[in-house]
Amino acid sequence: MIMLREQANLAKQSTYALMITSSALRNAALLSMAAALEENVELILNENEKDLSAAAQNGRGEAMLDRLRLTKERVFDMAQGLRKVAALPDPIGGEDFSILRPNGIRIARRRVPLGLIAIIYEARPNVTADAIGLCLKSGNAVILRGGSEAIHSNVAVADVMAQAAYESGLPEGCIQLVRDTSRETATELMRLNSLVDVLIPRGGAELIQSVVRNATVPVIETGVGICHTYVNAAADFDMAAEIVYNAKVSRPAVCNAMETLLIDEAIASRCLPKIAAPLIKRGVELRGCERTRAILLEAIEATEQDWYTEYHDYILSIRVVDGLEQAIAHINKYGSHHSECIVTNDYMAAERFLNEADAAAVYVNASTRFTDGEEFGLGAEIGISTQKLHARGPMGLNELTSVKYIVRGDGQIR
Amino acid sequence: MIMLREQANLAKQSTYALMITSSALRNAALLSMAAALEENVELILNENEKDLSAAAQNGRGEAMLDRLRLTKERVFDMAQGLRKVAALPDPIGGEDFSILRPNGIRIARRRVPLGLIAIIYEARPNVTADAIGLCLKSGNAVILRGGSEAIHSNVAVADVMAQAAYESGLPEGCIQLVRDTSRETATELMRLNSLVDVLIPRGGAELIQSVVRNATVPVIETGVGICHTYVNAAADFDMAAEIVYNAKVSRPAVCNAMETLLIDEAIASRCLPKIAAPLIKRGVELRGCERTRAILLEAIEATEQDWYTEYHDYILSIRVVDGLEQAIAHINKYGSHHSECIVTNDYMAAERFLNEADAAAVYVNASTRFTDGEEFGLGAEIGISTQKLHARGPMGLNELTSVKYIVRGDGQIR
Repeated sequence: MIMLREQANLAKQSTYALMITSSALRNAALLSMAAALEENVELILNENEKDLSAAAQNGRGEAMLDRLRLTKERVFDMAQGLRKVAALPDPIGGEDFSILRPNGIRIARRRVPLGLIAIIYEARPNVTADAIGLCLKSGNAVILRGGSEAIHSNVAVADVMAQAAYESGLPEGCIQLVRDTSRETATELMRLNSLVDVLIPRGGAELIQSVVRNATVPVIETGVGICHTYVNAAADFDMAAEIVYNAKVSRPAVCNAMETLLIDEAIASRCLPKIAAPLIKRGVELRGCERTRAILLEAIEATEQDWYTEYHDYILSIRVVDGLEQAIAHINKYGSHHSECIVTNDYMAAERFLNEADAAAVYVNASTRFTDGEEFGLGAEIGISTQKLHARGPMGLNELTSVKYIVRGDGQIR
Repeated sequence: MIMLREQANLAKQSTYALMITSSALRNAALLSMAAALEENVELILNENEKDLSAAAQNGRGEAMLDRLRLTKERVFDMAQGLRKVAALPDPIGGEDFSILRPNGIRIARRRVPLGLIAIIYEARPNVTADAIGLCLKSGNAVILRGGSEAIHSNVAVADVMAQAAYESGLPEGCIQLVRDTSRETATELMRLNSLVDVLIPRGGAELIQSVVRNATVPVIETGVGICHTYVNAAADFDMAAEIVYNAKVSRPAVCNAMETLLIDEAIASRCLPKIAAPLIKRGVELRGCERTRAILLEAIEATEQDWYTEYHDYILSIRVVDGLEQAIAHINKYGSHHSECIVTNDYMAAERFLNEADAAAVYVNASTRFTDGEEFGLGAEIGISTQKLHARGPMGLNELTSVKYIVRGDGQIR
């Protein structure tokens, strides 16, 4: 089996050729990779079948099988995703700062690829195609380490794409999939400092924490979302109920789903029952503070731990607050700085919330479910950063770039 | 002694108030801190004297004593530095992207502070004042951990500045200096993940490597500079000699100084003696490849290790290359991706070098010594990033900011 360091070396070597490819070449390669996925759909589905059987034999649940499963439609969706990425503007090569200095040297800051991007992810094989597409579009080489459950699918997808990329004229080695899915190899990947320019983990809290603890290469932390909706005293009750229902129920397993409702005491007794009724009907478990439970008899007691919890499930914690300041303090203490919403018609309250809630995305009167690269108009997304360094919130193609300073002189010395 | 975690907690708590301060208030505080440094110059010099005596007793050399030493002039320079930072534009609050989505939600990306910035540095007490100034200007709290050699000076400077900041109305706790200079405390600071938003090490290669290996908080790697000057066959020989002399000799201990000269074989026998003569006169030790030594009898043999070495000294390694491609390959293999220069009058060679040399700053016909925030027109500098994530090259005030997405709706759900 090819060793990890050898793979990373091949990928790193390819970055020097890759960073000077034209966007015409990179886009043609993406289209050719899309066609190759469609042409090889039978092969990919056969390999996927091996992963599905293994998972079934290992007694994995239906949720895991669904995440693993590829269908003809899903493979064609992966191909369409690549075509969409090909159609986006090239993030590379433009200059966004330039200055002529008094001594005559001219300086410009140019967008360049990051170099080699490593992605560690879990069981969804479509991430393989998405990540390859976004990294190559932005002129980066990529080394992928997916979960062992999806290894046959991932190898098939990556091999088909690497072959098409090479035949299109992209440098050899720019797409690497790590075959060895052991934990040791993942840790080794996190520590390849002169080779990997950035590591992006995509997955659950445990994976992210393992990367943050173990990595010595630069990391972008993604994904954990403890999102709040705060219903201010000046809220429209119907709007509040709709936004809360959508943020909690439309897709509870994703990171931009809501976990905690905060509501002003002044309106809690009138508004909370209105918000709670559809949630209860939908089977959402409510966990409340003391003041909540005095109003909603259905709510069980929320513990301190609840405020720190991303349920990923049909569970909602509820806290009645004294007002705006307590709501913001709660969010800044317990939140994961992902997405936070205020429902209100009070202008000053809205502006203070936008300024003071410390999160990647702060909302007035809209569901936190919109925190997403496509929904934000970024065209595509490789993940949602919950750190403040380099990228915060949905990461599109621009977030997969770095800069270099171009300095032109005619003999200047200092 | 106050515990590190308690200090970091106080600083983190202050970030919520700090991020909504006006730039008028932050600038007034900077001016007041400048005045306070000048007013307290005697106190600061007295404390500095303690560090100097201890260093002398410990047998530290004159270079270290010079780095440690404060004078009235140096303290006044620190104050002037703060006034200059106060006069710079505020990097916070502007929005650089905005979009109205088809569903009516309006999204803007706003510049916000990073939050709490940690700086680990070595023996120069002026870093204390510089770092505090840049962090507060950009709305960030700061926790500083300087070297034990400068502890009395650092405490004095930080205390004077923290007092002035507080009296100016900045939130209490936003300036923290770690009193305990043990290695364990430094390591603890590198791992305060929910408190420290970014850690910037400033110092030698050993410190940087220790941070990269041990930190679990986001880090910006700075400072190591293995910079090359490549004299292309189409170079003006006089210009080449001047640029090389300046890049090597003007200040060999800094990161943008030159370590290795690459020169095209086609001109080496005529040009190398011209470049070498003033260097030899200045006492620079030359270490060359075989082809170099056939031309320069003064050069001793360069080993493979020389190409990887930042000398910080009057030593220059020299390699004769076949041409542009070999020069770029050498730079990308052995360089630290800091600053690289080509001297040439060949247009295509210049453009290829700018595109293909993989470094934070790439030069045509100017000394690499210009890689610096002030020289690049960024107004000030907290360090020079040699990584690609978040910031690359000189980091000014903009590099001390993050973003948040502001989303305004009227009830949208997904």
